This record gives sequence, structure tokens and C-alpha cells, in this order.
Amino acid sequence: MNRLLEDLRIVEFSAFVAAPLGGMTMAQFGAEVIRIDPIGGAIDFTRWPVADSGTSLYWAGLNKAKRSVALALDKPEGRELARAIAAAPGPGAGIVLTNLPPLPGLDYASLKEARDDVILLRLIGNRDGTAAVDYTVNAASGFPLVTGQSGTGGAPVNHVLPAWDIAAGLYLATALLAAERHRSRTGAGQEVVAALSDVMLAMVGHLGYIGDVHINGRARPAIGNDLYGSFGRDFATADGRRVMIIALTPRQWRALGRATGLADKLATVGTMMEVDIETESGRYEARDAIAALIARWCVGKTLAEIAAAFAGTGVLWGPFQDFVELARDDPRASPANPLFAEIEQPGIGRYPMPGLPLDFGAAPRQPTRPAPLLGEHTDAVLSQVLGLSAAEIGRLHAAGIAAGPD
Amino acid sequence: MNRLLEDLRIVEFSAFVAAPLGGMTMAQFGAEVIRIDPIGGAIDFTRWPVADSGTSLYWAGLNKAKRSVALALDKPEGRELARAIAAAPGPGAGIVLTNLPPLPGLDYASLKEARDDVILLRLIGNRDGTAAVDYTVNAASGFPLVTGQSGTGGAPVNHVLPAWDIAAGLYLATALLAAERHRSRTGAGQEVVAALSDVMLAMVGHLGYIGDVHINGRARPAIGNDLYGSFGRDFATADGRRVMIIALTPRQWRALGRATGLADKLATVGTMMEVDIETESGRYEARDAIAALIARWCVGKTLAEIAAAFAGTGVLWGPFQDFVELARDDPRASPANPLFAEIEQPGIGRYPMPGLPLDFGAAPRQPTRPAPLLGEHTDAVLSQVLGLSAAEIGRLHAAGIAAGPD
Repeated sequence: MNRLLEDLRIVEFSAFVAAPLGGMTMAQFGAEVIRIDPIGGAIDFTRWPVADSGTSLYWAGLNKAKRSVALALDKPEGRELARAIAAAPGPGAGIVLTNLPPLPGLDYASLKEARDDVILLRLIGNRDGTAAVDYTVNAASGFPLVTGQSGTGGAPVNHVLPAWDIAAGLYLATALLAAERHRSRTGAGQEVVAALSDVMLAMVGHLGYIGDVHINGRARPAIGNDLYGSFGRDFATADGRRVMIIALTPRQWRALGRATGLADKLATVGTMMEVDIETESGRYEARDAIAALIARWCVGKTLAEIAAAFAGTGVLWGPFQDFVELARDDPRASPANPLFAEIEQPGIGRYPMPGLPLDFGAAPRQPTRPAPLLGEHTDAVLSQVLGLSAAEIGRLHAAGIAAGPD
Repeated sequence: MNRLLEDLRIVEFSAFVAAPLGGMTMAQFGAEVIRIDPIGGAIDFTRWPVADSGTSLYWAGLNKAKRSVALALDKPEGRELARAIAAAPGPGAGIVLTNLPPLPGLDYASLKEARDDVILLRLIGNRDGTAAVDYTVNAASGFPLVTGQSGTGGAPVNHVLPAWDIAAGLYLATALLAAERHRSRTGAGQEVVAALSDVMLAMVGHLGYIGDVHINGRARPAIGNDLYGSFGRDFATADGRRVMIIALTPRQWRALGRATGLADKLATVGTMMEVDIETESGRYEARDAIAALIARWCVGKTLAEIAAAFAGTGVLWGPFQDFVELARDDPRASPANPLFAEIEQPGIGRYPMPGLPLDFGAAPRQPTRPAPLLGEHTDAVLSQVLGLSAAEIGRLHAAGIAAGPD
């Protein structure tokens, strides 16, 4: 975290990954991010992974450093309070982020009525208003049919990382800052809409795959873990581990030949396969022959021996590790890395939590803050943002319109 | 594209995906983005996919709407010109984006000497300065060992989408706007550093996987295309296609039962498997039994019949398609979608190119622009930004310090 955006207030109506990640990114820049949820929590409140207590590690992870307000969003009075918080005055306030269908009174027209320069950022599924989530967008992207060995059997392999949600959440963060910049210069708010499927389509296009079909009439094949158009693949070690070894640049290719002692044989592969082994496309064409040599070299060595052989050589490589190895053994995933701090998360326990993966010279890193309890800041926000009295807040609790953390 | 950031000038020294995507995102917001490359192009200039002419669709895709300057960056005079462009005066100028090791004179200290309030955004591999790329970062992320059926055989399955590069590129775009906001308010520039491995580690942490290991002592297993903690899977159709069918919310679950006519049988599955089938975790536990019913229903129908049966029902689903089907048959990937415009890309041809996947109410969409030819704007930038005379520019060409296209 840092304090670069501490003068901003963002109100979030959200669930799952994309919008919560966009909001959390702002919170990690120091903005006051108020997530308003229905009493009892939104549909992502108990999402896996969960702790034994039932508290969601997933929800905690995507809502760190936010404030939480719980209101009866199914009742007009609850929605009216939510609108008042979203449209409250202040030069850095009046910014709303959502990926949920707009509730009555919380659409752009209603928010704009309450605050003329409001900024509303909405993530939708498809541009035509139909539903789409990371899983369906990914199915349409083409990637599952070229992942792993899917080409051989025709069965798609989905990514596990919610990559489209992540891209959408970070696009929303960028859009928020662009819209706020515009407002601070012109006084004008606006509605910004992003479709998750458009995020996918833009990225597939940016990477050249749409052009490849239109221009070349072909698509990238499924080639397992091989790099397309270059050399890279995973290899087994003597001790049952796997390593990824890559040569993109001439320097990396020469380093690989030197470090493995295979330079002469790799040159012979070029002659044998009739390719220019000094080019990326030549190495791609000859990849199976290259890999046969590298595989034999790797499988005779433990991971530690490979690490020692490659250290300081300029070879581009890295071991595969599972989530347990990453979390327990990789010092980069521990407070040895300034990215992480060990934090007590109520209902879950103490574990290393990441901050913002950006270091700003002019904005020192601040301690990461845990996710709130649901409704933890209901009373504080009603008081600080709306100026409600303790008596009025008490009435809202009694009437079931507002709720704190139990 | 739009014009929200048209008063900004960003100078980019980059290659591959992350930094070019960050810069292109700014260009699609209307900023003047000048990519400065060595004469002949950087190491990504011919990256696959390529057209028959050898021109890279990949490079074109990630550098749309930028200006291109080609300079002899291996010579002091070329680097001095690059530094002058990067540090040129103007309130929206003096912003530099890079993922390459800093050349002499182009590090933060040198740039700051030339312009005190310069903003330098640097993407590095690991925080300790060692190399890391999407492929090695992904190997360390844990995801390849839970992708597809990798758990059964132990072999990792890499994602094909460069998801970590995409996240890093969009973090850079966000960071750029946050740093520029800070400068416009305080006058202070700064250096911003992001490590690609930190981007991965932050995301694995945000999604709860690091906490899961520390708190629960376990990690998400490899479960193919099943959704973790909920119901979702791919199914074969009668006509050899595949569809992804998901039920995250109670409404989606009821819709699936109604649309397939399987509601009663799905309820029986709950009783039979002794789970509460109305909850996400109950459906996750009973997923194989649920899937057996849905699979039988799907395999008796063509994709068109399934689409008709699900239309308007609220079932969350989508077909898998490959890159060819996406590019040729999906209207969302064509100019029928305002995201796309058909553009002539020199050296490649005419094909649909995506703009920014964000619609701003106060900033109308502008036509997408193609990627430049390498060096296309060398002379214009030397003249407009540095004020060099035609004679001086001619001398730089003759001396091999500056180059145009060809």
C-alpha cells in the first residue's frame, strides 16, 4: 500500500474477482474504498478457499484494506442510504465501481441526479447485456483449445487463473484514474462501461491471433508447454521435479549451450534439421530435436544441480512449484519480500498478505491492512459520510436497514 | 481509442508483451506514445505470429497507435537523442515506460538530471534483479500443476495466454496515471518499479491460495475443467462441440434444472450424495453425479439445440470455440462490435483490430490506428519534439544514428 490516492473515495457494489480487484487496487493506493454489501454478504462472501470457520480466504484476499458497509439493499431505505454514500460531496468522492446489475436508484441516471459529476464504472458480461463470466468468456477465447495437449484429443483445457477477470479489474482501475483525471480538469463525470467479453476479444486481437486467421488463414496450434515460434519447454529432473527452460534471445541460446556443454550438439541439430538454429523460428522448427538433448541433460541432474549449473550463466529458466511449495518455501512469497506482511485476518488467522506489486519512489510502502468484517464500517460511514446521529443509526439497525459485524 | 489522455506524452523502451501493452493502453486513451527502438527493431520485432512478408502480427497488435522512432541506441549519440526525447519539456511529457535493462544515460538518475520531474516506470523480472519472464513466473505460480488433469500425471500444463504479462502491463498503466496525478499536484516525479514475479505473487495471494496453505495446510487440487468450490464443467454435444455450463448462484442453479428438465433428478442427487445441493459447496461435492446427468442431456443435442434450450432461461453457459471460429464466426470479434474496426496494417493487410475495451460516456470512441512502421516517426519526432532542422536530421541519417522505415 501507499498513499498516492488517499484523497479519493470509491464506493463499490461488487462480487467475485474483477470489480473487487479494481477496487482493492485503489485501496492499496490509499484510496478510501467502501464496499457496500447486502446484509449477510453478497454472493461471493463464502467463496472457496475458506477457513475451517467458514470465513472465505478468497473474499478476504480481494477486499483487503477496504471499508465494509452492510445495508438492506432489497429495501428502498437501504438503497437510498447506499445512493447517498455513493453520491456524497467532496472533490475526491462520487466514484462508483460495480459489476452487479444496477439496483433501482443506483443506476447512472439516479446517481447523476444525486451528484451531477458522479463517475460510474460498470463491468458487464457481454456488450448486449447478456451474462458472461470468466469461464464462458475463456471458452470463447480460443485459448482452452490450444492449452496443454488439447489438440491431440480435442478436449479443451481451461486456465485456472481467472485471467480475464484480472485483466478486467486492472482495466477498471486504469479507467477510474482516467475518468477522475478528466473530472478534475473539466468538472464532468461520466459513465464508463466495460464488457468482460470485450476485454478478452481485445487481448486476443492485441496478441495477433485474430489477424493470424484473417491474414494467414491459420491459428496457433496446441503444442503443450512449447513456446510458439521460439524455444522453451518443461523438462523432468532426476529428483522428480520439473523445470521450464527458455531461449528467446541469441544471448539466452548461447548461454544454454554453454551451461549444458551441449553447444556443439545443438549446432549439429541445426545442420541435421536443416534450419538456422541461430534464429527463433529455426529453433521452433527443430524444437523436438533440441528438447531431446536438453531432456537427457536435465534428467541426469537434481533440481539443485541444475540450479547450480545455470547460476550466473544467463540461462532463462525456472522450476515448477505447487501452491504449497510456493507458500512455504519460496522466500518471495514471505515477508522476506517487502511485498508481503504477516497480518491477522479476523475469522481466519495470521498469514502473509501481499500489498501492491509496485514500488513508488515518492510514495513509501505502507503496511497492508486486512479485509474488513462484513459491516465493520457501517456505523462509521453512516456517521462520517452521511452525518447521521447515533440515534438515527440505532434506528436503522433496529429496523433491519443497516447491520454491523453481528 | 478516445482522447482522454491526449495531453500526455509517454516514451517507451520495450519489448514483448507487458510494457508494450501498458504503453498501448495509454495510446488508446489518446496519449502520444513514442516507442524508441534500436535501428532494425528490438528483439520482439519479428515475433510470431507473422504474415508471409515476415511482418509480425504480434508486434503490430501490441504497438497500435504508437509513434515509432529508430535510433542507434548502441551509440552515445543515439542514446543522447533518446534521452532528450524522453526528458523533453511540457507538462504532459517526461514519462518513460520500460521493461528493458537501462542503457547508459537512460537510467533514472540520468533522466532526472535532464528533467527533474521525470516519471520512470520500470518492469523488472525479479525484485533482486534476476531475469524472469511470463513462462518462468508462471512455473513458480502453482497454477500449471492444477491446470487440466495435471494432478493425475504430475506434468505441469502452462497457460498459453501470457496472463502475468497482461496483468503487469495493466498495473503499469494504472501506476503511470497514479504517478502522473501525483506530479500534476505536487510537481514531483519519481521512479516506479514493478517486478513481474511480484505481480504473480500478489495475485496468487489475492485469490487466497497462499492463505489456504498457511491456514488450512492444503492447496487447491487439479480438477480439470471443474470449478473449485462450485458447479461448472465442460460437456460434449451431439455435433462434436463442447460447452461450458456453470451454476454459481441459486438462480443459475434453478435455471439449469428447469431448462434441462432435470430439476427433480438433480434434487435426488443431493439426497443420494447426502449434500445440500442448494449450496455451492454441496454442488461441488456432488459434481460428478450432477455432471453425469448434464452430460447425458448435452450429448443428445447439437450446439444449436442447446443454445435454443438455454436462450432466455438464465442458464450461465457458453460454447468453446477455437481461434478460427472466434475470428471468422463470432460477431463480437468483427466490426459489428464497436470495439473492432477493419484497418490496413502496412506489411500485413486489412483485418479487424480491437480498440480499448472501455466505453467512456464523456469521451467518444475514436478510430483505432494501426501500428507504425519501424522508424515511421523518427524524423517527425526529431523535428517536433527536439526542434532539429532537416539538415541536422539528414546528418543523423547519414551517420547511421537515426533511421526511418527501410
